[in-house]
Parts: sequence; C-alpha cells; structure tokens
Amino acid sequence: MPGLTIGDTVPNLELDSTCGRICIHDYVADSYVILFSHPGDFTPVCTTELSAMAHYASEFQKRGVKLLGISCDDVASHKEWTKDIEAYKPGSKVSYPIMADPNRDAIKQLNMVDPDEKDAQGKLPSRTLHIVGPDKMVKLSFLYPSCTGRNMDEVLRAVDSLLTAAQHKGKVATPANWKPGEKVVIGPSVSDEEAKKLFPQGFETADLPSKKGYLRFTKV
Amino acid sequence: MPGLTIGDTVPNLELDSTCGRICIHDYVADSYVILFSHPGDFTPVCTTELSAMAHYASEFQKRGVKLLGISCDDVASHKEWTKDIEAYKPGSKVSYPIMADPNRDAIKQLNMVDPDEKDAQGKLPSRTLHIVGPDKMVKLSFLYPSCTGRNMDEVLRAVDSLLTAAQHKGKVATPANWKPGEKVVIGPSVSDEEAKKLFPQGFETADLPSKKGYLRFTKV
Repeated sequence: MPGLTIGDTVPNLELDSTCGRICIHDYVADSYVILFSHPGDFTPVCTTELSAMAHYASEFQKRGVKLLGISCDDVASHKEWTKDIEAYKPGSKVSYPIMADPNRDAIKQLNMVDPDEKDAQGKLPSRTLHIVGPDKMVKLSFLYPSCTGRNMDEVLRAVDSLLTAAQHKGKVATPANWKPGEKVVIGPSVSDEEAKKLFPQGFETADLPSKKGYLRFTKV
Repeated sequence: MPGLTIGDTVPNLELDSTCGRICIHDYVADSYVILFSHPGDFTPVCTTELSAMAHYASEFQKRGVKLLGISCDDVASHKEWTKDIEAYKPGSKVSYPIMADPNRDAIKQLNMVDPDEKDAQGKLPSRTLHIVGPDKMVKLSFLYPSCTGRNMDEVLRAVDSLLTAAQHKGKVATPANWKPGEKVVIGPSVSDEEAKKLFPQGFETADLPSKKGYLRFTKV
C-alpha cells in the first residue's frame, strides 16, 4: 500500500477532536508536532500508551513540541476513555487533542493503517507516530503494529536529536544510541577549517584505518 | 512518495553484497530479518550505527534474527569501510552482509530514500529499518533521517515484543515502554474464561472508571 513517508508534506486534514475541530497544518503552525495513531479506545496497549504520552507531555512541551492523537473512534468515546487513561496513572492529564476519524480516510492518508487489525466498520489504525516539522513535512516515523506499544523514551530521544540537528543547521548529527548530553558528530559537509570556527570548544577525530578523518565528535 | 509500509511483502530483490549475491526472500527464509539502510560508507553516524549493529549482533542471533544492511555504495567500498567500523569499537565484528545498490532502485522499492540527502549520482538512503517476518512481510519500521542515529536498544526491544506476541499467537501484546521480563497485556479478543486457561499463572485486571475490564496484565 502506498503511504506517507519521511520528506512528504502531511496532508492538511480537518477533523473533529476532543479539543474541537482541528486543521492539521494550523495545529502544526510553526512547531514540531508528534502525530500518533492508536488502534482503538478502551483497549489495553492503547491505554498504556496514551497514559505514557500524558506522562511525557511536559517534556515535549518544554521543547515546544505539540502532541496530536488520532483513532477511528468518535469524540464522545475518546472523552469517556480519557477517564480511564487518567485513572490508570494518577497525576497524568490528557492535555493533548485526540482526533476522530470514523470514516477511516485520514488514517489511510496518514499511512496509519494496521494490516492485520479490523472491526465491523473496516481497517483499524496501527501504532504509527510521525514527527512533523514546522514546515509541515514528516521528519521521522515509527510504524509499529498493534502488538507493540511504543517507547516514549525513544520518541523523546528522536525529538532531541532532530531539534539538536536543526538548531545547528544540519552541521551536526547524533550517533547511534545517542542520548542528550552526549557528544554529537560533525556532518561530512563541514571541513576541518569550518569545524574549528563553528565549534571553538574543539572536536576529536577518531583514528580509523582509512585515515579519512570523517568521524569527528564535539559537545554542543 | 509512495512506499513500502507495514503489512507489505518486502520486494524479492537480488543484489550483490559483502557476502556474495543475495536474494532477499531466500535470505529471510524462515527467520525474522532486520533490513536496514545507511546513507553512505565512510560517513560519521553510519559508522557508529554499523558498529552498534555489530556489537548487538549476538543478541539478535540468540533470538534467531538475521541482519541485512544496504546502501548505494559498491561492495568494494563496503569491504574497505568495514575495517573502519571494526576498528571504531574493537571486538565488534561485522558478520552480517551489507548489500550494494549503486543503481538506487532497491532503496526506492524499499522506502529507504532520504528526502534531503543526495550526491552527484542521485538520492541517498535514509536510516530506515524494517523488521521483516518469516512470511516476508514488513512487521515494524523505523524511518529516521540522516541526522538521527538509530537506537539499537529500541530495535532489540521491538524484536522482543514481536517475538513475544508471535510466540503467544497474538493473544498477548506489550504495553508502552515495555521491557523484556515485564508484564505483558492480554489481547482484547481473549475472554476472561480463555485467559484463565491460557495463563494459569493468573492475571490482574486494572480497575478503571469504565469498569470494562479490558486492561489485563500477566507474566509470560
């Protein structure tokens, strides 16, 4: 099935939500947005996921990142279910909107369909999560099936990586298994001369057999 | 751009690799396979990622999961670069094949194109990672851009979740932020009566305002 992928502009859909009518591009405005689907209200993994999202919401907010949920249940159902989500981990408030896609057209356009899950009305959403940039383009995606609850620590780590790279205008990137606070790498388009100017704090070049000097670490 | 997504059969491409000619379906055979792309040989984040993959290879192997890399560089380049990867973290051996896609057709078919990265020959791969099942279908995907190195702990966690769900024939799923050894949830299609038979070790039902009894945890 064809589907929205990184680099694509997220469709500017307009849907009802628990916080009123939402037009996706207006909601994004000039922020990063985490747009995520869940298979269904009042189901087990989804409850743990939306509770986790509520728990991490303050971390995303600190970074100026907005959350936006979606499933095929209607707004009344989302609102009833929110009571369960908030009761599951007391202290977590579902402050982000959850959109309703009862026609199941939005989840198709957003590449959020689970291949194996359906109900009497048709296909159900997967656990897809797109990080959308202020330019309305998909920067990074997780496509998880219904059996696998997402990991909000990895979502937060990915957000921190994207924001770090953007803040440094793509001159740095984050290595495998990177965590905030650890060293970043300097991009291959940056010469050693430019790197000296950009990173007065200095950088270290890994000594590798090729002697190409391309693996340079710095603290930002 | 349309692209391979979860539930799709991975195209049965045949490509040269560091371990000889590889036909993807034959390579998958009856295993799970982690098929992952990197933007380019002799570049910083990629070196840390393929080194991390080499470091985690024994964990994947223990679970019967095979690794398969791909980029648009040729096999000779992959082989030269492997010396750098192995020198970066001594003790890690690149035991998995890295395929060569100099024509850049395979990365398109595999939804592994980075929207922002190109060289003189054309588009470059993103940091995409598909977990392919023994049925040759994509089960779970990560689509990361060039600035964000992947997290092998999350890949391993996702593999463990998929294998746990498959082992229990889809009757269990893993909640948000789950780690191996922690409780799983019982799927909504399983009645309490069936759950008692399937999980003689017992299960706990979360007491939520809706009183629907759908959030049940057990140890497997």
